[in-house]
Amino acid sequence: MRQIIEDLPGSKIREVANAALGRSDVLAFWFGESDETTPDFIREAAVRSLAEGETFYSHNLGLPELREAIARYTSSLHRPVSAARIAVTSSGVNALMLAMQALVGPGDEVVAVVPVWPNLTAQPAILGARVTRLALRAEGGAWRLDLDALRKAVTPQTRVLIVNSPNNPTGWTFTRAEHEAVLTHCRTTGTWIVADEVYERIYFGGAQGICAPSFLDFAEPDDRLLVVHSFSKSFLMTGWRLGWIVSPRALEAGFAKLIEFNTSCAPVFVQRAGIAAMARSEAFVPGLAQRLRLCRDALLPRLAALPSVTVAEPDGGLYVFFRVQGQADSLALAKRLVAEAGLGLAPGAAFGSEGEGWLRWCFASRDPERLVEGAERLAAFLRL
Amino acid sequence: MRQIIEDLPGSKIREVANAALGRSDVLAFWFGESDETTPDFIREAAVRSLAEGETFYSHNLGLPELREAIARYTSSLHRPVSAARIAVTSSGVNALMLAMQALVGPGDEVVAVVPVWPNLTAQPAILGARVTRLALRAEGGAWRLDLDALRKAVTPQTRVLIVNSPNNPTGWTFTRAEHEAVLTHCRTTGTWIVADEVYERIYFGGAQGICAPSFLDFAEPDDRLLVVHSFSKSFLMTGWRLGWIVSPRALEAGFAKLIEFNTSCAPVFVQRAGIAAMARSEAFVPGLAQRLRLCRDALLPRLAALPSVTVAEPDGGLYVFFRVQGQADSLALAKRLVAEAGLGLAPGAAFGSEGEGWLRWCFASRDPERLVEGAERLAAFLRL
Repeated sequence: MRQIIEDLPGSKIREVANAALGRSDVLAFWFGESDETTPDFIREAAVRSLAEGETFYSHNLGLPELREAIARYTSSLHRPVSAARIAVTSSGVNALMLAMQALVGPGDEVVAVVPVWPNLTAQPAILGARVTRLALRAEGGAWRLDLDALRKAVTPQTRVLIVNSPNNPTGWTFTRAEHEAVLTHCRTTGTWIVADEVYERIYFGGAQGICAPSFLDFAEPDDRLLVVHSFSKSFLMTGWRLGWIVSPRALEAGFAKLIEFNTSCAPVFVQRAGIAAMARSEAFVPGLAQRLRLCRDALLPRLAALPSVTVAEPDGGLYVFFRVQGQADSLALAKRLVAEAGLGLAPGAAFGSEGEGWLRWCFASRDPERLVEGAERLAAFLRL
Repeated sequence: MRQIIEDLPGSKIREVANAALGRSDVLAFWFGESDETTPDFIREAAVRSLAEGETFYSHNLGLPELREAIARYTSSLHRPVSAARIAVTSSGVNALMLAMQALVGPGDEVVAVVPVWPNLTAQPAILGARVTRLALRAEGGAWRLDLDALRKAVTPQTRVLIVNSPNNPTGWTFTRAEHEAVLTHCRTTGTWIVADEVYERIYFGGAQGICAPSFLDFAEPDDRLLVVHSFSKSFLMTGWRLGWIVSPRALEAGFAKLIEFNTSCAPVFVQRAGIAAMARSEAFVPGLAQRLRLCRDALLPRLAALPSVTVAEPDGGLYVFFRVQGQADSLALAKRLVAEAGLGLAPGAAFGSEGEGWLRWCFASRDPERLVEGAERLAAFLRL
């Protein structure tokens, strides 16, 4: 195993989850997924496809029907996008890896806005790039982007800027003005933007309604921009491993090759499920987002009421990110919470040193009562 | 898109297939898959899993049950292998990409035995390695490994030797003596072997019966050896994207990380299909191999009888690789065969310059009569 792989930290979230192995009494909120099963109408599409015998190799870039459906969906939310700009991938993380392979080679400079899901910074490292971390800044419980710091960090030597908004774990979400400022700057430096926007439909902001601000609202079709998406969060399809990339048209042939060399294609029966999801997206996704808002609202005031907790309302995403006074070691705290309170949270350190001292709570749940029970366990633990 | 990606050749097989778009009269034998649907008992396992709601994230390295089943399967064919040495991957090609990421970095030297499926040489190129091609040698229609040339090509500077046996496209298959010579040499140079053995069960040799010789027959558990496998060929599961890697135990944690950063996991319902396949492997695979032998035997004598054709019996795999006298440009010939004979074959040049002048015919078919009809079309074309 190459040293660079050995040096990548293992998942601290899994380390906490492993500490709970064999215990059925732990309320787990550590992973970024709901406990709700994929809707029937999506599963049924896959079952029909299997029954019809769709078990063969398929197009590298995805079924034309699915690419068209994703293009229509994207165009309905943002500026118009053609199917030629859509590449179907074997999950969102796979889409990110393909984006990195397309852009990043040995010695390239990459800037990542952090704290962030660790996969985003591990991928360029695997490909031999140098990753500079640009920290969001916590003000009370809320996180903010320092645009001046970003303009200083992203130079003509910067090959790629990686940014995830709505952000996992902090909930920070780009404003339109910040978006425009970042794109304007990256145009001057010639820097590619890889934007992980998988949480765009889980957005609690007012004016935009049911979709977070996106680079795709205003970027030109040939801007140096790759937007990465997934069916996982908006359609309760975490286990299906289906995602997509929106790219400039000129990259279509390159992504076909990269997909061939990475996974060749997504299973057709999984893509049929994606087509079914797209066909009923507006009947399903806003309702899910509304239920997730209720989850957030069940949890947030209970955390905010705890005197030692610092927390703010997330703009989007599935997570509440908070800190507990006097608790600097988030991994140790998360393990104690499992052992002593039966509460499973993700340690902020899993998202980089910038998240140290914080905890991430995934509030996606079928039953908001689970969140209430979890908050009570935390309260009892803190009163110990 | 990075220049190195732009420079990778697109698939010449797809180029031929694209030339047939919109034509329903072409008998296609260009892709490496059967026209037979995945068996019912395998599809049913996936359907059951979906009905039970197994739509969530799963273990990076695969369900423990599947890893155990693959370990038992491997141990029944070769030397004993523990489940800790098995990593479940999102297809065979994904397994190969993970193997390359584990071993190969910028500037590393890689030797690949060719002609070969082009993905095997594209992957290290994407990662910045230098790839040296070591050619099998054609003697009449048969291909042979030059062991002396291999010993010269693989030096202490060689990080990885890539070898695919039974070989796609030539049908060449390692003998046990060759296997041992190669491993012995690589031990002295400290070179890792990445062995693509996905066709091991499609083997027509006598003594070994229903499994081709494998490095796993005699290698030590901690040899520098990664063996890559797939459910695609042995179980008619091309479209499912499920494979695995057999590695030394010490690489387990590293592969868990790499899988996390590439696709995170294979879908659970796809893994359930894999478990079902493994449970009935010996009731299914030998029968499939026998039917494929009948396919080969339907095709081969008909090709051999054509005066301008040079061909030999493949030792294993799904392909007959042959050349036509006076036809040096395999891509042009393959396109003419589509246009003028309604016959779809893969051009040898798709597998590197060493395959130029040859054609690959995938003989995996439900109905051997399709092969007979195809051979008649070729015969008619050559008599033109």
